[in-house]
Amino acid sequence: MPFGERVARAVRERGTCAVVGLDPHLDRLPEGLRARLEGKRGMAYLEAAALAVVDFNHMVIENIRDLVPAVKPQFAFYEALGAPGWAALTETCRMATQAGLLVIADAKRGDISSTGAAYARAILDPEGPLGLDAITLNPWMGIDTLDPFVGVCREHGRGVFVLVRTTNPGSALLQQHGSPMAAEVVARALHEAGQDTVGPSGLGSIGAVVGATAGEEAHSLRAQMPQAWFLVPGVGAQGGAASDAVAGAREDGLGCLVNSSRGVLFGAEEDPDPAAAIRQRAIEHAARFPVG
Amino acid sequence: MPFGERVARAVRERGTCAVVGLDPHLDRLPEGLRARLEGKRGMAYLEAAALAVVDFNHMVIENIRDLVPAVKPQFAFYEALGAPGWAALTETCRMATQAGLLVIADAKRGDISSTGAAYARAILDPEGPLGLDAITLNPWMGIDTLDPFVGVCREHGRGVFVLVRTTNPGSALLQQHGSPMAAEVVARALHEAGQDTVGPSGLGSIGAVVGATAGEEAHSLRAQMPQAWFLVPGVGAQGGAASDAVAGAREDGLGCLVNSSRGVLFGAEEDPDPAAAIRQRAIEHAARFPVG
Repeated sequence: MPFGERVARAVRERGTCAVVGLDPHLDRLPEGLRARLEGKRGMAYLEAAALAVVDFNHMVIENIRDLVPAVKPQFAFYEALGAPGWAALTETCRMATQAGLLVIADAKRGDISSTGAAYARAILDPEGPLGLDAITLNPWMGIDTLDPFVGVCREHGRGVFVLVRTTNPGSALLQQHGSPMAAEVVARALHEAGQDTVGPSGLGSIGAVVGATAGEEAHSLRAQMPQAWFLVPGVGAQGGAASDAVAGAREDGLGCLVNSSRGVLFGAEEDPDPAAAIRQRAIEHAARFPVG
Repeated sequence: MPFGERVARAVRERGTCAVVGLDPHLDRLPEGLRARLEGKRGMAYLEAAALAVVDFNHMVIENIRDLVPAVKPQFAFYEALGAPGWAALTETCRMATQAGLLVIADAKRGDISSTGAAYARAILDPEGPLGLDAITLNPWMGIDTLDPFVGVCREHGRGVFVLVRTTNPGSALLQQHGSPMAAEVVARALHEAGQDTVGPSGLGSIGAVVGATAGEEAHSLRAQMPQAWFLVPGVGAQGGAASDAVAGAREDGLGCLVNSSRGVLFGAEEDPDPAAAIRQRAIEHAARFPVG
């Protein structure tokens, strides 16, 4: 099934477009897991931390699997644990897939030709080590950064989310540069690249990362990319409002996936019962973004 | 010692600004190493491939260590081998550092706040799993993508190379967008960010990736970033001419690092004696880019 349809089905099944980010900040893991790292250094530390991350993610996945359509592991947190971290990432993604969740690799890769192809193999290709459902990509080097991914998307129902517009303080420097703005240039190129990937839902395999931007800009980006799934970060810890997050949704409510990472994984203070607290926060996150 | 000085010293010591890219294309490894992968599948394949990559890189490093100042592992090729690939990357970087080579992570990361900090820890931080000398970064999300790296650069003599201008077919779409061109906007921002990292050589810790571009554009970028080390890909397999590669060098010949990956690692046909052939090609690569 094409990626656009797979996402549409998962969102309708769960009744929400909320996504949970798997960003294991080590210093915020539950106390029992943090305790396992004490006094360890070097490779012993990395290995213990990687195992703690797997145990944490297992708990998260078991408590959210029936609530949301997808998870989004942030690769940086796993790479920070070296080779053991990459093993923990692999195991995390395996558990999530097994639990029936779509897995979106937040890797923000962006390279060309044989290097781009190696990234596609590393992350999306079903014969590669991860075989995930989608990946975030950076378009700065050009739309040829998409080329190595398009084939995998088409053949294996995979998708990409290209960074179009983010909402961090420095994002305007390049994304809003020129007239039309560079972000709009990317939006148009994505629309063209994705046209023949669109299924019955009207949504295709070439998606966009679009920060939680208010009114005008969200509508304008939706008009330029009517067929794109938007992946929206910036809810919760990053400060976006719920209404801004889905400002780019279509009239039927489809079109956005709204991520929250720390807002679901970690409470303001130590959770007495982490599993129950994570489930409760995931229920609230899902309820903020109902679909259908 | 600040990064700019470390590079200047290494370049002067070897008498060349040639860099060797460690991009282990599996299907081009010497026959003896390729044979070890035959008939293997899944994790057994990844593990055998990762060990073959380490053996290949060991041979490369031993044969170029006295010839060039730095190596540049392309992360995609290691990630394509999953967790075993990340272990092979770690071991490769350890061997290169041990051999007295600077190691530039060609990872093209670009993210903000805690995610950016996790990438800095993953790749540059001496207390992290890799602790490399420099990293390539993607500026699309804004100059705040540099923030997590600047502290490590300053404290530990590390450096960054930010993608300013590449020469792939699609690169113009964003990099040449607007007036001034977006690439120039990045150049100016980098110049500002790097000003207080400059040492006696006149070169600092905030470098730029600048493709092998002919005359006018190279001079213009050098004028905008007089203090930046340029990392120049695009020689050999990517088709750039030697004179274009160093068109952005300063009058004293410093300022550019010119990479060749496949052009050094692999012959047009199977090498009867791979070690000798790699050494010979590295000698020729170094001789094309003499300094001092």
